[in-house]
Amino acid sequence: MEPEQQQQQETSKKAAKKEAAKAEKLRRRQEAAAASAAASGVAGVSIDGPDPLAANYGDVPIKDLQSKVVSGRVWTKVSSLTDELKDHAVLIRGRAQAIRAVGKKMAFLTVREKGYTVQCVLTVAPDLVSAQMVKYATAISKESFVDIEGIVTVPPEAIKGASQQVEVQVRKIHCVNRAAPVLPINVEDAARSEVEIEKALEAGEQLVRVNQDTRLNYRILDLRTPANQGIYRLECQVSNLFRQFLLNEDFVEIQTPKLTAGTSEGGAAVFKLEYKKQPACLAQSPQLHKQMAICGDFGRVFVVGPVFRAEDSYTHRHLCEFTGLDVEMEIKEHYSEVMDVVDRLFVEMFDNLNQRCQKELEAIGKQYPFKPLKEAGVEVDPLGDLNTESERTLGKLVLEKYGTEFYILHRYPLAVRPFYTMPCPDNEAYSNSFDVFIRGEEIISGAQRVHVPELLESRATALGIDVKTIASYIDSFRYGAPPHGGFGVGLERVVMLFCGLDNIRKTSLFPRDPRRLEP
Amino acid sequence: MEPEQQQQQETSKKAAKKEAAKAEKLRRRQEAAAASAAASGVAGVSIDGPDPLAANYGDVPIKDLQSKVVSGRVWTKVSSLTDELKDHAVLIRGRAQAIRAVGKKMAFLTVREKGYTVQCVLTVAPDLVSAQMVKYATAISKESFVDIEGIVTVPPEAIKGASQQVEVQVRKIHCVNRAAPVLPINVEDAARSEVEIEKALEAGEQLVRVNQDTRLNYRILDLRTPANQGIYRLECQVSNLFRQFLLNEDFVEIQTPKLTAGTSEGGAAVFKLEYKKQPACLAQSPQLHKQMAICGDFGRVFVVGPVFRAEDSYTHRHLCEFTGLDVEMEIKEHYSEVMDVVDRLFVEMFDNLNQRCQKELEAIGKQYPFKPLKEAGVEVDPLGDLNTESERTLGKLVLEKYGTEFYILHRYPLAVRPFYTMPCPDNEAYSNSFDVFIRGEEIISGAQRVHVPELLESRATALGIDVKTIASYIDSFRYGAPPHGGFGVGLERVVMLFCGLDNIRKTSLFPRDPRRLEP
Repeated sequence: MEPEQQQQQETSKKAAKKEAAKAEKLRRRQEAAAASAAASGVAGVSIDGPDPLAANYGDVPIKDLQSKVVSGRVWTKVSSLTDELKDHAVLIRGRAQAIRAVGKKMAFLTVREKGYTVQCVLTVAPDLVSAQMVKYATAISKESFVDIEGIVTVPPEAIKGASQQVEVQVRKIHCVNRAAPVLPINVEDAARSEVEIEKALEAGEQLVRVNQDTRLNYRILDLRTPANQGIYRLECQVSNLFRQFLLNEDFVEIQTPKLTAGTSEGGAAVFKLEYKKQPACLAQSPQLHKQMAICGDFGRVFVVGPVFRAEDSYTHRHLCEFTGLDVEMEIKEHYSEVMDVVDRLFVEMFDNLNQRCQKELEAIGKQYPFKPLKEAGVEVDPLGDLNTESERTLGKLVLEKYGTEFYILHRYPLAVRPFYTMPCPDNEAYSNSFDVFIRGEEIISGAQRVHVPELLESRATALGIDVKTIASYIDSFRYGAPPHGGFGVGLERVVMLFCGLDNIRKTSLFPRDPRRLEP
Repeated sequence: MEPEQQQQQETSKKAAKKEAAKAEKLRRRQEAAAASAAASGVAGVSIDGPDPLAANYGDVPIKDLQSKVVSGRVWTKVSSLTDELKDHAVLIRGRAQAIRAVGKKMAFLTVREKGYTVQCVLTVAPDLVSAQMVKYATAISKESFVDIEGIVTVPPEAIKGASQQVEVQVRKIHCVNRAAPVLPINVEDAARSEVEIEKALEAGEQLVRVNQDTRLNYRILDLRTPANQGIYRLECQVSNLFRQFLLNEDFVEIQTPKLTAGTSEGGAAVFKLEYKKQPACLAQSPQLHKQMAICGDFGRVFVVGPVFRAEDSYTHRHLCEFTGLDVEMEIKEHYSEVMDVVDRLFVEMFDNLNQRCQKELEAIGKQYPFKPLKEAGVEVDPLGDLNTESERTLGKLVLEKYGTEFYILHRYPLAVRPFYTMPCPDNEAYSNSFDVFIRGEEIISGAQRVHVPELLESRATALGIDVKTIASYIDSFRYGAPPHGGFGVGLERVVMLFCGLDNIRKTSLFPRDPRRLEP
C-alpha cells in the first residue's frame, strides 16, 4: 500500500467512528427541536387570536402541492431580480437560507434559488404585515422552501450577504416545504473556504470546518454550496464540450454494454456478479466494445459512461465507479493521429470552459482558490512508467522548462501497458502508447491497438489473460480490421485537475470508493 | 409468461441449437479454405516468376502498420469520389466488399468505406498493371482492408451496385489487413430486405435470410450493413438532440452512480453483487439519485446512462441493460409542467431527426420499410394500466380519431406505479402520473414525485420495500424538498419506434437479454 493510501485509510476509519458519534448527537438534537417546535405551535397559521391578515402567511397544505390546480401565477427567478423591476410586484420561490428578527416588528429573510440570493424584508404595517406574520416568518426553519410575494425596492446602500442588489418588501409568505429544524451541517459552514477559517482563527474566532467525509454523508446539503453548484455545472459543460468537438469531427457516440461475460480486461479489479446463472462482470472500461465498433465500420467512435474498478485504492484520485470519456478511431499510419485529436480536443475544451463557465469558476475559486491552467501542447521524450511522486517532479520540470501544465509523454514500456497495446516497430520492449498530464498528474491514457488477432492472442496470454474469456472480442479482428487507436480519460479527473481541487470526491456527485456506497 | 415471451423463448432455444451446428460447419469450411489458400500461395507478392511491377501490389507487412512512419500521403474518402476529381490520382482505404475477375486480364473490386462504395478496375496494361497483379487482387478475401492508388474516370453509363458514380483505374493495390477467407455471414446477405427475399422467391430464387440471432452472434459483420450504419448514427443524434434541447432549457446533465446499496427501487428485477463485502446492486434507473440532485438544488437535471433490469422478459421490447434518458425538475404547481417539457422535447427531436438524418433514414428504410411517424401532442383521458395488446388497440383508435401516433395518457391508478409517485389530490386511488405512447407502444413514463419524507416512507412500506435500505434517499427529503416531477425513456425504444422496427435488439449495439451476454 502506498503511504498516501495508508494515511487516507486510517483517516477514513477514525472519521467513520467520529461520524457515528456525531450522527447520534444530531438525532437527539433533532428530536428535542421537533418537540419544542410542536409545543410552541409556531408552525400554525395564527397563534395570538384571530389575525385579519392570516391568509397572507402560513404553511401550504400538502393537498395543494399535489397538482391540484394550475393557477396561472407567474414566478420570477431570484437571479432576475434587478433594479429594472423596481416597484414591481413579484412572486418568488426559494429556500430560507437565513432568517434574522429585529425586535418583534421586523425580520430579514435571505432567500436562495440555485445559488442566487435576495434579501426579503418584513416590516409590521397596518393592513399589510402583522406582528403574527413576522413571528411566523422568523420561526421558519432554515433551508425550508417558501413562496414570497412582495414589492421590489432598491436600497441606497450595497447589500452584503446576498447576490441580488434589490430587496423584496414581503406581502405574503407561505412555506411550501419545511426542512427539519436542526440540520446535520449548515450550508454556510460547508461553503466556507480554508482561508476564511484560518483568518478567523488568527482573529481568535473558531469557525466550523466541515470535513470531506461529513460532506459526503450529508451530500444533499453539501451540494447546495455555491462551489458545488459551480463544480457540477462545469462538469456538465466538460462532457458537453467533449461530445460537441467529437461530433463535429465525424465521431459517432455509441452505447457499450457494462454487463460482460468473462473477466473484462483481466486483473483483480473487477466486480463480479451472477447474470442469469452465468458468471459475468462489470466492464472496467468500454475498451473492448469500442474497438469492436471500429471493426463494425463506424470509423471513429466515442463513449461517455460509467466504468467500474474494484480497486482497494484509498488515494485522492481513485474511485470504484467513475465516468469514462473514451475515444477510438481508425488510423492511417501512426498513433500521432490520435494524439493530434487529444491535443486539439483538450485545448479547445479548456479555452471554452474558461469562456463559458466564468461564473462557475468564480464560485469554485472563492471556496477553493486555484490558478488558471497553463496550457500548450508539448510532447516530452520517452520515459518508463511513473509513480505519483515522479509524475509530480516531472510536472514541475516541464512547467519550468516549457511553461505548460498540459503535456504528453509517449513510448511507454510494453510491459506496463494493457495487452491490446501495439508494440513499437523498432523495439518490442516499448509500445505505441502515450499518457497526457495536467498539473503533473496523469489524466489521459492512449495508444495504437493491436488489430491482428494472432498478436492479440499472444499478448493476452503473455499477460495472463485466458483468451477463451475474450473470444468474441478477438474474433472481431478475424473479419478484416483496420489499424486503429484511441484514448480514455476520467471526467471527474479532468474537472479535479482543471480546477486544481485536491480530491476526486469533490468532483463526483455521489462518489463510490471501497468504503462508500452511499448516499 | 405472456404468449409473445413464450414464443420468443422457444424460437430462441431452437435458434441456439441451429447456431451451434452452423458454427461447427463454418469452422470446418474456414480451416479448409485457409489450407487451400496456403497451398496456392496467392497471398504472396509474386508467384509466376519475378514481376517488374511487384512493388505496386502485395500485402503491407505488419511492421509497416505499427506507426513506423508518417509518410505525408493523403487519403481521399470514398464518399468524396465524384466527377470533380476526374483524371486525378487518388489514394483510398476501404474494405474489398466484392471482387469479380473477368478472364485473367481484368478485375472489378467494389471498395466500401463507412457505407459508401466505389468501383475499382484493374486492366492489364504494359508498365502499369501486370497479370500477376490482377491475380493478386482477385485472391483478396472479401471484407479485407485495401489501400488503392489510381486515377478517377467517369464511365458513360450509370454504375449499379456502387454509391459513387465514378471508377478508379487501379495503379497500386496493397492489402492492409486480410479478413478470414470464409465469413460466417455475408454483409450483402445481412443487408437484404424481406421484400427482396420474397420477390426473389416468387421468381424461383432462394436468397439467404440472416435471422436475428445469427446477426447478433456475428454482430461485427452485421453492423457493417447500410441499415445498421444508419440506425446507430441516428441513435447518436437522438441522444444528442435530447441533450441539446434540455441544456438550452437550463437543465444540468449529471452522472449518477450505478452501484448502489440496498435493493435499488425494489422488486426481483435487480442484479445483486458483492461490493467490498457489502451487499450491493445495480441501479434499475437513476430515479433515486436524480431526485436527490433536485434536493441538492440543481433545479432541473437529466441523466443519460445504462440502467439494469434482471427481468426474465423475452419480448421484442425488453432488454436487461439499456440506455436510460432520465429527466427530473422542480415544479411550481402541477405535473403538467413536466408533460409540457416532454411534448416540446419530443416534437422538436422528431422534427430534427427527419431533417438531419435523411440519409440514415433512407438507408434504414431500404432494408426495413416504414412509414414516417405522425406526430402531434394529444392527451388522452384517464385509463387503468394497459397490457401490450390493449396498448396497440388504443394506439389504433387514437390514430383513427386524432390522426397521431404520438400521444400521452395520464392519471394512472396509484397501485400500478412505483412508491415514489404522488397520489392525486382528489382521489388517492389514482396518481399524478402519465405515459407517452408512440405507434401504440408505451415509451415514456413520468409523474409528480412524493417530496414529503413521511408519505414516502408509508408508500414504500405499502409496496413492500424495506425503508432501511433506502434510508439515505428518504433522508434527502428531510432538509427541505421542492415539489418536483420527471420522466424516463429508453433510448433504444425511441429509435425502434421512430423507425418502426420490430425488435429492440435492432437498436442496441450489443444487446443484453436473459440469454445473451455476448459479444
